[in-house]
Amino acid sequence: MSEEKVLHPTTIIIFGATGDLAKRKLFPAFYNLYIDGRMPEQFNIIALGRSENTNKNFRNYVVENLENFSRRKGTPKDWSGFKSHITYFQHQLDQEDSYQALNQKLEDLDNTYGTRGNRLFYLSIAPNFITTISNHIKNASLASDPAKDRIIIEKPFGHDKQSAIELNNLLGETFEEEQIYRIDHYLGKETVQNILAFRFGNSIYEPLWNHNYIESVQITVAEEVGVETRGAFYEQTGALIDMVQNHLLQILCMVAMEPPASLESGEIRDRKVDVLKSIRRISPDQVGHYAVRGQYGPGIINGVESKGYRQENGIAPDSNTETFAAVKFYLDNERWQDVPFYVRTGKKMKEKHSYITIQFKPLPHSTFSNSSHHLSANRLIINIQPMMDIRLQFMTKKPGLSLVLEPVEMIFDNFACQEDTPEAYETLLLEALLGDLTLFMRSDQVEEAWDVVKTIQESWKNNKDTSFPNYEAGSWGPEDSMELVKRQGHKWV
Amino acid sequence: MSEEKVLHPTTIIIFGATGDLAKRKLFPAFYNLYIDGRMPEQFNIIALGRSENTNKNFRNYVVENLENFSRRKGTPKDWSGFKSHITYFQHQLDQEDSYQALNQKLEDLDNTYGTRGNRLFYLSIAPNFITTISNHIKNASLASDPAKDRIIIEKPFGHDKQSAIELNNLLGETFEEEQIYRIDHYLGKETVQNILAFRFGNSIYEPLWNHNYIESVQITVAEEVGVETRGAFYEQTGALIDMVQNHLLQILCMVAMEPPASLESGEIRDRKVDVLKSIRRISPDQVGHYAVRGQYGPGIINGVESKGYRQENGIAPDSNTETFAAVKFYLDNERWQDVPFYVRTGKKMKEKHSYITIQFKPLPHSTFSNSSHHLSANRLIINIQPMMDIRLQFMTKKPGLSLVLEPVEMIFDNFACQEDTPEAYETLLLEALLGDLTLFMRSDQVEEAWDVVKTIQESWKNNKDTSFPNYEAGSWGPEDSMELVKRQGHKWV
Repeated sequence: MSEEKVLHPTTIIIFGATGDLAKRKLFPAFYNLYIDGRMPEQFNIIALGRSENTNKNFRNYVVENLENFSRRKGTPKDWSGFKSHITYFQHQLDQEDSYQALNQKLEDLDNTYGTRGNRLFYLSIAPNFITTISNHIKNASLASDPAKDRIIIEKPFGHDKQSAIELNNLLGETFEEEQIYRIDHYLGKETVQNILAFRFGNSIYEPLWNHNYIESVQITVAEEVGVETRGAFYEQTGALIDMVQNHLLQILCMVAMEPPASLESGEIRDRKVDVLKSIRRISPDQVGHYAVRGQYGPGIINGVESKGYRQENGIAPDSNTETFAAVKFYLDNERWQDVPFYVRTGKKMKEKHSYITIQFKPLPHSTFSNSSHHLSANRLIINIQPMMDIRLQFMTKKPGLSLVLEPVEMIFDNFACQEDTPEAYETLLLEALLGDLTLFMRSDQVEEAWDVVKTIQESWKNNKDTSFPNYEAGSWGPEDSMELVKRQGHKWV
Repeated sequence: MSEEKVLHPTTIIIFGATGDLAKRKLFPAFYNLYIDGRMPEQFNIIALGRSENTNKNFRNYVVENLENFSRRKGTPKDWSGFKSHITYFQHQLDQEDSYQALNQKLEDLDNTYGTRGNRLFYLSIAPNFITTISNHIKNASLASDPAKDRIIIEKPFGHDKQSAIELNNLLGETFEEEQIYRIDHYLGKETVQNILAFRFGNSIYEPLWNHNYIESVQITVAEEVGVETRGAFYEQTGALIDMVQNHLLQILCMVAMEPPASLESGEIRDRKVDVLKSIRRISPDQVGHYAVRGQYGPGIINGVESKGYRQENGIAPDSNTETFAAVKFYLDNERWQDVPFYVRTGKKMKEKHSYITIQFKPLPHSTFSNSSHHLSANRLIINIQPMMDIRLQFMTKKPGLSLVLEPVEMIFDNFACQEDTPEAYETLLLEALLGDLTLFMRSDQVEEAWDVVKTIQESWKNNKDTSFPNYEAGSWGPEDSMELVKRQGHKWV
């Protein structure tokens, strides 16, 4: 979103550099930016870890992992060039003197280059450390220049509305809002960014994009995997908080937002907050009508037997944590009155598939109604992953001697070649380096999103009567999810 | 258009059965309907010709020509089955007793089958014989049953508005309007019929299909061939009458018409006449502003040198007949106010290509305007021939790290396999056999279409100051054609 912005000399400080996210996503993303010439001309990556280690060892560890996790391989020259920018630095998150030492390290680097570079702090650590680190950064004056220093944090941003407000207040003691980059990696996906281009770069969709022509909107983020190694974390989280509160609501905002006057980040984030504010809040007794939760039992995925959630590692045998959530949202505004936005997400679903369905209304009157034609209403499908295409379903004449109509699909597939398509983290890290906040979550977005799910969250927490498991691994979720949309005469498509 | 209608026993009488159209189009079309099982169970084709000939000879002549002109070949069994339905009958167009003999022949056939079958008279003859034949049919009581007898005639239907009215009146002495099938073979094309399905079988196009969202409509029917063997005929006709008055105006009607309440033929033809009536009539002094004519000179097509029109066989060396015409039409109605409909047609153009372009308006405001993006306005291209697809041009995010937009094309191609796609004549003959008039021209359509081109026709006839030739063979027509659309800030696309 940052055509005119430029890259300044930057020191990137990664907290949790020995962790899984850094290995799988961050280093590969920086590496790919590097071979694309999209890193600043002068940059250093300070990799913080608790244990003792040598630069040489850590650099080799990074390069070895590129083999598995980078979308492109590059050459030995690329590897050695990239790793020369990495410095391993032993560091204890909770020790004051460790931050003083870091400060000295950063100043040494600045002196080497003769200029105080930008500093980008990446908190790739468990959320309960955010407060500690932020306080230490403040006390050690590590981020003393609001114009040059930035912090990137990962979700979850709190665990409910109140804790999110507290976290934002606390971060606010060290950083201005404009310095804080809250990552929702869905916003970095090509196909999600393309929603903006598709809606506002064309004149033909916007006139149709409202309650006059759209019957319903569906957003599905289906995962084939279960909780994998995240059992303990997931037990405290569940699908509503892990997925709906962030990814699904963010996609919903992209679909539903009013046209922004410009691409300026404040403008776009304002329009998204408008959407979240317009979402109808429900009362506790309505939760059963608006939301469905599920938990997978044993089942079969792709012909392979699959455990139930309660049998997974780190999961209580009587767990009531939901691994599936479906919610019906209404937006009380001019554009979307009475159009249901159905969102659903689940683990161990039939297949991995994230997509948006814009279901248009049927024809008001059909010229063809007196004949044997069944006319399907138009449908626009925006596939987010793993397919990354756009499909328009419409009726056409069936080739042949009679005027018989048949439904067909027009497919646009611009992002087909995965290797050429940047990963979300590449896009997001570049934006952060450039200082563009558009693709990141502002504090009020986060807080509103918590507010949107608040009643459901509390109701599910207080009511443990779940009759879980209620869907088989390898299915599309519980029967109640089908009922949720069927009540309006709709179905998941 | 005729799902419910059924095929009755029919005798098809072809006037001009030894001619070019019968050889190239009619017999192949009947043959393809036959192998598709779409001919009536009982049918006879009476092939009328001036010379003496035997059934056997003529049948073999028909079958031999299938080899060259039928889209499908079939088997020897198909050939012998089909040809057994054909009877050659020597006949003189202008002799009373020849019609009496024909009457006897038809009655004999009816007796053989024990029932008076439908009669379908196909006038595949020069237009100046229509009157003669129609009168003789009447006098010999060949078409005495308005419910069973039909006549098919080919354009031109007259040579101006007055002569068309006279022709219609004359036909009206023998036939009811519902018995007269005036062929415009463009209406039988799959891609032209699909305009109806596309517009009225979907809910998403109609809201955009008006002056609020459409900047202009362009209809191009470009031919690569010259006048070939039709020089003498063409000298008296020209592009305006040969193409614009019929094919191009009919396509324009399909694009511009209001939604018909049903597929009933009267309803659809009413809506088309509404369009023709709404076309703005111009005064003689405006012709230069609304219409452009051209005539090809020598040039190069596909690397081969090509003669100029005035050098072709049967053409006067100082001919002022136009081989190219471009006209700007305005429709003075609620839907299309101020939207120019540009139509153009020409011979010896750069390539054979018939297509419709719906040019949408640019975005009212571009979110992306402050960056380096150039946004192309959306465009829908309906290719009629030789390509038979639908293309939607829109803007999308260019895959990559920045939000840069690029124009792309979504293609829908349902009619790609030519061999599987019926030819226009198959569709039209089947409709005539079924008694469905939708795809044929009603008298008022024909007369209105003549009225639409009347002023241009007269102006060009009276003003011989043409400075022809004014475009090279192998080009897209005269410079003035570009100017015609450029004056509105448009260009041919």
